[in-house]
Amino acid sequence: MTALERLIETLAKMPGLGRKSASRLAYYLLKTDASFVQGLARDLVQLKERVKNCPVCGNYTEEVPCRICIDRERDRSILCVVEEPKDLLSIELTRQYRGLYHVLMGVISPIDGVGPANLRIESLLARVREGGIREVIVATNPTVEGDTTAVYLSGLLKSLPVVVTRLALGLPVGGDLEYADRLTLARALEGRRRLEQD
Amino acid sequence: MTALERLIETLAKMPGLGRKSASRLAYYLLKTDASFVQGLARDLVQLKERVKNCPVCGNYTEEVPCRICIDRERDRSILCVVEEPKDLLSIELTRQYRGLYHVLMGVISPIDGVGPANLRIESLLARVREGGIREVIVATNPTVEGDTTAVYLSGLLKSLPVVVTRLALGLPVGGDLEYADRLTLARALEGRRRLEQD
Repeated sequence: MTALERLIETLAKMPGLGRKSASRLAYYLLKTDASFVQGLARDLVQLKERVKNCPVCGNYTEEVPCRICIDRERDRSILCVVEEPKDLLSIELTRQYRGLYHVLMGVISPIDGVGPANLRIESLLARVREGGIREVIVATNPTVEGDTTAVYLSGLLKSLPVVVTRLALGLPVGGDLEYADRLTLARALEGRRRLEQD
Repeated sequence: MTALERLIETLAKMPGLGRKSASRLAYYLLKTDASFVQGLARDLVQLKERVKNCPVCGNYTEEVPCRICIDRERDRSILCVVEEPKDLLSIELTRQYRGLYHVLMGVISPIDGVGPANLRIESLLARVREGGIREVIVATNPTVEGDTTAVYLSGLLKSLPVVVTRLALGLPVGGDLEYADRLTLARALEGRRRLEQD
């Protein structure tokens, strides 16, 4: 296999890139400055070397703990629980939320073999038990798996002195948090409703 | 800027990748095996180190001259002229063409400051003058620039003993050769028509 074929094959393995877009990118890289391509290669290597998960919230960070977790300007009495770091980023971009986060690193999905033990649920409970948190917003995706996870977490948190809320269904059902526009996501944050814990 | 922000910014500069898809790819790379990301970085570096332009046809290749130019099974009496190496690939994928190629490395476009002197036209004329070629297929894109270039080449080749043809307009006018499906492109090859050289 040539270097060009190998690169196209590697690129085509990434999400949202088919063979056509992968080969389009590869031809662009062939035509562009060598310094740009070397820079991209260096960025990739540094990404894996420098970026770690925050031991507190789970978000990607280069500093430990992350900037959000140590930010004294933020409201430490609200915790927003998300599936993935990219969901945290989506919520940050709304600029409507000033509390802290907890990233589950996935969602309960029996079909994919992901159960509660595979997620960052123990550390979530530990944070809530530590005290000081009055509300947990379960901002998992409005999908079957996200809803299941929300109900599960709500059950676990029932005995603790926190209000558990869920993002308002301003989000399109079955959709993906990552693709929501900022305004819709901001509305969903504003209209979050209390989960029934019976 | 963090390593993550820097990678997203670099990725977003590439064609067809907006900020959303760039950040999607970056988060995918954070989540995936380090070996995959290191492999991608290595592929990128090797791409620029190993891939050169064939001195004969201009196509990207790791061997000099390229495999197509030295392939004795191919019909050396037909030359297909394309704008870019990616167009050559599109034609190869139709499996309808067994002649040779000549890549112009662009198209006449005064608005972009690209004139005939910036393209591989001299080497095209030299190849035709050398003899043995009976047909030149001008497979530039069916756009204003591609048509202009075709007419210009046709004028230059008028005094030489070759038939100059153009791909049939099975291609959508104003479209891009790169995005044509294989069947349409194959039909366009079959139905190519002679250029009037008056």
